[in-house]
Amino acid sequence: MAPGREIVCKAAVSWEPEQLSFEDIRVAPPQSGEVRVRIVHSSLCHSDITFWKGKGSFPVIFGHEGSGIVESVGENVDGVRPGDHVVSVFQPECQDCRYCKMPKTNLCVVAFAELKSWAMLDGKTRFSAMDGTPIHHFLGCSTFSEYTVMHHSHVAKVDPSVALEKICLLSCGVPTGLGAAWNIAKVEAGSTVAVFGLGTVGLAVVEGAKTAGASRIIGVDIQPSKQRIGEDFGLTDFVNPKDYNDKPIHEVIHELSGGGVDYSFECVGNPKLMVDALKSLHAFGSLIIVGVTPAGQNLSFDPNILFFGRQILSGSLGGFKIRSQMPELVDKFMTGVIDLDRYITHNLPLSRISEGFGLLLEVECVKCVFSH
Amino acid sequence: MAPGREIVCKAAVSWEPEQLSFEDIRVAPPQSGEVRVRIVHSSLCHSDITFWKGKGSFPVIFGHEGSGIVESVGENVDGVRPGDHVVSVFQPECQDCRYCKMPKTNLCVVAFAELKSWAMLDGKTRFSAMDGTPIHHFLGCSTFSEYTVMHHSHVAKVDPSVALEKICLLSCGVPTGLGAAWNIAKVEAGSTVAVFGLGTVGLAVVEGAKTAGASRIIGVDIQPSKQRIGEDFGLTDFVNPKDYNDKPIHEVIHELSGGGVDYSFECVGNPKLMVDALKSLHAFGSLIIVGVTPAGQNLSFDPNILFFGRQILSGSLGGFKIRSQMPELVDKFMTGVIDLDRYITHNLPLSRISEGFGLLLEVECVKCVFSH
Repeated sequence: MAPGREIVCKAAVSWEPEQLSFEDIRVAPPQSGEVRVRIVHSSLCHSDITFWKGKGSFPVIFGHEGSGIVESVGENVDGVRPGDHVVSVFQPECQDCRYCKMPKTNLCVVAFAELKSWAMLDGKTRFSAMDGTPIHHFLGCSTFSEYTVMHHSHVAKVDPSVALEKICLLSCGVPTGLGAAWNIAKVEAGSTVAVFGLGTVGLAVVEGAKTAGASRIIGVDIQPSKQRIGEDFGLTDFVNPKDYNDKPIHEVIHELSGGGVDYSFECVGNPKLMVDALKSLHAFGSLIIVGVTPAGQNLSFDPNILFFGRQILSGSLGGFKIRSQMPELVDKFMTGVIDLDRYITHNLPLSRISEGFGLLLEVECVKCVFSH
Repeated sequence: MAPGREIVCKAAVSWEPEQLSFEDIRVAPPQSGEVRVRIVHSSLCHSDITFWKGKGSFPVIFGHEGSGIVESVGENVDGVRPGDHVVSVFQPECQDCRYCKMPKTNLCVVAFAELKSWAMLDGKTRFSAMDGTPIHHFLGCSTFSEYTVMHHSHVAKVDPSVALEKICLLSCGVPTGLGAAWNIAKVEAGSTVAVFGLGTVGLAVVEGAKTAGASRIIGVDIQPSKQRIGEDFGLTDFVNPKDYNDKPIHEVIHELSGGGVDYSFECVGNPKLMVDALKSLHAFGSLIIVGVTPAGQNLSFDPNILFFGRQILSGSLGGFKIRSQMPELVDKFMTGVIDLDRYITHNLPLSRISEGFGLLLEVECVKCVFSH
């Protein structure tokens, strides 16, 4: 296929931390192994905000959850063609490297190069400002743009009959939570579960545990409004630590579960909460760490708590080999096993992205989806 | 069966911490569910020494690794009869409680009652001094005696053709290490392994990893003599941290293994070493904590190190349901899959038990076996 032309379109550019500018940018044609996608919908994840607050290489276009239609592809791209419907995925799966060939991990070597450079694999960016200033990529996706260029390992093809405004949610947060329950913990029918933190990821853990047949799902959150939302997803019990004064939460959970839960999930990124979650387990339960902890904070506990077989598990993107398994996830949505609508509390045009960033910090917002 | 009579025999009694007295004691007949065993051989484990140094209920008879012949049984004992050859096991398996019926754990509810009381399940002891003073039991075994009484859940029947002076080693340390490799880590052929601490348990991990087909087994110990011993068990590489000055050991292991090992085992009970072991893994390797940490010490690390799927596993007695699986272990010994002789570096009569305690603190001693 002949190389395409540069596209000028609108994007949300962050020139510096905590700044967003909705402006025209230039998007270069895709190079070898790359795909240019017209992003139709994107959604906002806490990781965008974390990096936006200062950990990024600026200027940059954030966003890693997105759905859209392939506009053009570079050479050496086999999996998708122009016109295909796709979902962006922050964790690449090239399906060819030594990691991708191992059943045991969903890592891919492409991630390591990108994480270092905030650019494409040749070290250059495909975005530039109208004055030519290069603009960095974010997690291989940069979906807060009308058009983006991604390495093909970040592009999961989906059935074109599926609503793009919903399945942008299958990019990151929802599969992270579902997979934590299904793939990492491997929650079984009849088991007991505690979920610490009921944002998108925590709610997806609840949905994953419920669909796996857990008999008891205890949600823990300091926001009272999360009780009703959590119950919609399948919570059987809600614990607000603020209601218990000095009583340790793990004692409350031991009482509720009759001696500790089989699985506890920490979905906040707070090491103190991780210790609570660990202590909430019975003698051979599993703690699954899903939350990302801010730099400089350690998890600290007496290792003898693990003696009889407690374990600590983790894994990115719910352990999914996400491009290979995207059809399974889409099928679960189409057949009603999972309900993506429930996560979407707000819709905004991309031009009002700043409002979206504000909304995510409000407790009533689970997911804000942008229309491009 | 009619109740037996009291037996007077020799035992090593600890009347206070760090004291041992080889003296006559009285051993009451076994009550319901109990078995009285003539211990023929016993071996010494670091846990005996840990409790002997002050954590016990004194007076007490230590020892939990032992082999012998059933002398008599109380009512309600189905599994063994007088004359049967048996091995003592510190972790009970009653084969009847809710835990014993779960495939997922090797816990048994009998353990909880015993750990509290240092006595039999009725809260009383079957040992007394010649003047009638009750003497406590240790981990349900108390094998440093010519005769002991154990709940049947601590008694594993073995083929009478097997050498009792060897298979007392199947009580605790050796299955703990073998099972850490086989059952907890599930080491596969071709995988890479690091073992921190080359005592009996660490060496058994090495043997377990070797028999599972690990291609690279790196031993870490500060005693140079452990290199030769470890190589006998299957080490391919030996790292003495003292040879590396300020270079972190995990860097040495990353270099040796080409980017981190699949499995690292901490067999000392030192939280700092656990962090080294964790950092020695590649991005989705497993740390198996086998060592028991002295009270008051925390394991502390940045939880984001687990992000891509590193995990921390543990479990007592190598995850074996030990009475059920003892025939498998004996078979592995009889068919030469595992070599118990290699662990036995010293033999002593039980009357010289004090020397044995001293020997275990010497680096050349792996296992000291006592003849009763």
